[in-house]
Amino acid sequence: MAYRAPVDDYAFLFDHVVGLDQVRATDRFEEASSDVTSAILTEAGRMCEEVMAPLQRAGDLHPSHLENGVVRTPPGFADGFKAIAEGGWIGIAADPEYGGMGLPMALNTAVNEMMSAACLSLQLAPLMGQGQIEALEHHGSDMIKSVYLPKLISGEWTGTMNLTEPQAGSDVGALVAKAEDNGDGSYSVSGQKIYITWGDNDFAENVCHLVLARLPGAPKGTKGISLFLVPKYIPDADGNPGKANGLKVVSLEHKLGLHGSPTCVMQYDGAHGWLVGPEQGGMAAMFTMMNNARLGVGTQGVGIAEGAFQHALAYALDRKQGQTQGPTGSIVDHADVRRMLASMKADVFAARAIALSCAVAIDMNNATAAPEWKARAAFLTPIAKAFCTDVGIDVAQQGVQVHGGMGFVEETGAAQYYRDVRVTSIYEGTNGIQAMDLVARKMMDGGEAANALIDEIEEQAEAARARFPRMGEAVWQASENLREATEWLVSQDDMQDRFAGAVPYLRAFARVLGGHLHLKAALADTVGGPREKLARFYIQRLLPEHEGLLVHAQSGAKALMDLSADELAA
Amino acid sequence: MAYRAPVDDYAFLFDHVVGLDQVRATDRFEEASSDVTSAILTEAGRMCEEVMAPLQRAGDLHPSHLENGVVRTPPGFADGFKAIAEGGWIGIAADPEYGGMGLPMALNTAVNEMMSAACLSLQLAPLMGQGQIEALEHHGSDMIKSVYLPKLISGEWTGTMNLTEPQAGSDVGALVAKAEDNGDGSYSVSGQKIYITWGDNDFAENVCHLVLARLPGAPKGTKGISLFLVPKYIPDADGNPGKANGLKVVSLEHKLGLHGSPTCVMQYDGAHGWLVGPEQGGMAAMFTMMNNARLGVGTQGVGIAEGAFQHALAYALDRKQGQTQGPTGSIVDHADVRRMLASMKADVFAARAIALSCAVAIDMNNATAAPEWKARAAFLTPIAKAFCTDVGIDVAQQGVQVHGGMGFVEETGAAQYYRDVRVTSIYEGTNGIQAMDLVARKMMDGGEAANALIDEIEEQAEAARARFPRMGEAVWQASENLREATEWLVSQDDMQDRFAGAVPYLRAFARVLGGHLHLKAALADTVGGPREKLARFYIQRLLPEHEGLLVHAQSGAKALMDLSADELAA
Repeated sequence: MAYRAPVDDYAFLFDHVVGLDQVRATDRFEEASSDVTSAILTEAGRMCEEVMAPLQRAGDLHPSHLENGVVRTPPGFADGFKAIAEGGWIGIAADPEYGGMGLPMALNTAVNEMMSAACLSLQLAPLMGQGQIEALEHHGSDMIKSVYLPKLISGEWTGTMNLTEPQAGSDVGALVAKAEDNGDGSYSVSGQKIYITWGDNDFAENVCHLVLARLPGAPKGTKGISLFLVPKYIPDADGNPGKANGLKVVSLEHKLGLHGSPTCVMQYDGAHGWLVGPEQGGMAAMFTMMNNARLGVGTQGVGIAEGAFQHALAYALDRKQGQTQGPTGSIVDHADVRRMLASMKADVFAARAIALSCAVAIDMNNATAAPEWKARAAFLTPIAKAFCTDVGIDVAQQGVQVHGGMGFVEETGAAQYYRDVRVTSIYEGTNGIQAMDLVARKMMDGGEAANALIDEIEEQAEAARARFPRMGEAVWQASENLREATEWLVSQDDMQDRFAGAVPYLRAFARVLGGHLHLKAALADTVGGPREKLARFYIQRLLPEHEGLLVHAQSGAKALMDLSADELAA
Repeated sequence: MAYRAPVDDYAFLFDHVVGLDQVRATDRFEEASSDVTSAILTEAGRMCEEVMAPLQRAGDLHPSHLENGVVRTPPGFADGFKAIAEGGWIGIAADPEYGGMGLPMALNTAVNEMMSAACLSLQLAPLMGQGQIEALEHHGSDMIKSVYLPKLISGEWTGTMNLTEPQAGSDVGALVAKAEDNGDGSYSVSGQKIYITWGDNDFAENVCHLVLARLPGAPKGTKGISLFLVPKYIPDADGNPGKANGLKVVSLEHKLGLHGSPTCVMQYDGAHGWLVGPEQGGMAAMFTMMNNARLGVGTQGVGIAEGAFQHALAYALDRKQGQTQGPTGSIVDHADVRRMLASMKADVFAARAIALSCAVAIDMNNATAAPEWKARAAFLTPIAKAFCTDVGIDVAQQGVQVHGGMGFVEETGAAQYYRDVRVTSIYEGTNGIQAMDLVARKMMDGGEAANALIDEIEEQAEAARARFPRMGEAVWQASENLREATEWLVSQDDMQDRFAGAVPYLRAFARVLGGHLHLKAALADTVGGPREKLARFYIQRLLPEHEGLLVHAQSGAKALMDLSADELAA
């Protein structure tokens, strides 16, 4: 089934829901007019439909593999990456000084979503590049910027992130990779890194690794970590790939999904690297990259959800089974199938609107440096990452269900979404880590950022009551419930009490935020229009989930931790 | 990681939660003493741990395949099936006259759960046999019973169900396979059937297919369907496999999971078959088999959930990451990981108790033929099938999450549970079909069966208040909510209004029933014991989900169906 890029949805969201007008009103993004964003969405959408979507199954059936130490990518991936690079889609938000378009992250996010929907395993390659580009823009030396940024933005070179080691996953501070100063401005980097997405490929002339490692005598934990840029081939005096560096791909993982994307074990043996940011300042630089990547991964969840939804809807429109009361004669007219499809679509909308809201906050922070936008972006990032990937997993799983028995057969393609998307709630910080970040670090302000957002939701719900009394009331009440739970969380000094309910709290917040964004869409729709109907479905049937979640969120750690590990195992 | 059969859990549930004492008090099952059930659980448990569990990965890595028209099964499966057959585990509930043990379905269900946890793809073979045995016991002629039952019960022969055709899935009445009377007591069966689980194998000397087909001039729909027993080899005068019959395996499906289990496209070309039940009475006979299989599939969900839980717990106990406040130094002491594991364990308990409650109702109906037990069994079957398989999918998905990055790597085994279990919410009637059955057919009594169960839940919650005021109150209130929603559903004359909320209603019912069964367990536990703690976790944190679901359940079809297929596609 053919993927159709939902270009009009983004335009509607930009104009009526997530407030891209504010971004367009800044000096920095004044060029991001409706015409410009529409043109880019249309062109990128066409590339996704025509070039990337046909690679989706090929990547699954012909996994990337290691051949004499070199990664061989699936048939067509090299051309696919070339199309992405030549379209300029890697550098939509990158600095124009180095070849980027300098356009808003909101637009970049929409394009990333389309690429994810079309072929997630290939999309990971430009996504990793984008994270590296942003890290180097913020923390790279002038030398690094001038040599690497143009190549990364053009896609001649690709980028990777190297954090994880076998004993250092969520606990990145436990890493032991080493670096030593060579005394000539370069460092020697040694160690093993695992789960390196697109750690190598056969289509870019160089692969640039950002590697976390420790200098001699560095303090323990995250404070002693430095970041190094370690290229596969060391650039020569002209900035072209020169001598092979001391690194190699040891093996690839055999994974549940994303077979097209090589997940590498990387070995560094005295490889030449260059410091990014200050010594022992690696985590700050890495967080720039990770925050970008977290929204990027949330966006992958939206993309897969959209792809799985379209796939399931096409099947439901085609499949005849049983007597229906509807006009199509297909299973889409069974109430239960309609319920599944409406749930999927309503959640795709909510997730997409949340991801784009996060992107708008990032843009506003980049354009204005206003602390409230910085706080908003920081607050929305874990919500976007976790909720959107959970929606991706859930919609893909419902997509299989809509297909019935065909959903379990690989040829249909529904199962691939279910497999591919599964890692998105894990990588770039598990969704549990996101939720802990939300209730701890993102509430160090005493709940100010949370409450600012809740205030907005509440005000808008008030205002909506004139036209939509029931929906306005439901969202208003939900925001009050959220405020109460937020107060409870903030008042817990023992972080364990926050952590015990962090995941249900994050999901409840997203559910309410989704209601708010659906309500905005309904207000901008014609009377009785499809967006109003979808909002009614969401607010009536899905939003109530938040109440049970908030009970869970406010249950604390004691009774939970009293159920000991031994008792769990008994 | 090694599967450990939860033998003590079944004994506790039998004695204190699901009321096996009532079953033991009947004449029919008076031999099912504690000693007998314990001995069987222990011995079957050992077989699952030692013989079946080691086959789990092998079945995934070396799928069943077709070789010159013959199915070749994974290495070890033939020995595994032999161990199941020789243990007598196929015929635990079967008629002793033909070699069965004549023991309760509750015990059979516990053993089926252990086999599912250990190796689901192999367990499907005996499960299909059990369904066929029950159908033949109820509807087979004396000839059929005497020739086939001893072989099916001993496992010398295996059995299959043949319902589905490409155009006839959930809508079984659309099938077109044909049968003609040969005039000698046999029929000629022709047609193609798909999704035939264990349609062939290389370890049984015969494979017996129950095939739905139409006689000439049969009415349309399910009323015109007859059931035929069609063996791979036609038994000779001595009841031994003789001449090859006119049937073949055309191909096997390439599936998301259950690679060990061959899912066949079967072609029948004038194959000899024998009528089971009366002409045009095929659906009634088939329903005997399907009801059995529906509880069986629900039980598979529990088994996979238990397996995935044990797998994740073992990983969490072993994996060191980050600083914890607990004694193990492993991630099990992180509140969020503890939350996931406690949720998994609490849901496994609820699902298992629901499946066993359904089995006890079946046993009581078989032993007493009392209409209230018949109604209870009929009411609980769709709940057990749908809720338990949803729990299987959800727990397997959480199991992947507990593993972090390792969960996405196939070698770990967590991903296999996630893949294998996915079909359980689809086959033997999708969970949507189960929910529609619950709110339509199972409420044709005006809600009597539902309310009888709600009364029980409420009475017991009342009684529990003395010892557990908060838990008793929570379950009491939940049962009131359920009663209200049930009244609303029953009062909807337009079935669409029931169907639109059928799935959320079924899940809410199961959630509340789970609370009831947890409360029973807490009451039987020592003060402050682990079962009380688990009940507190469930009732405090998971039970509240039912409220949001019941709002959804009572939302009706109108606003849903107003969102047209075109608008979904827009």
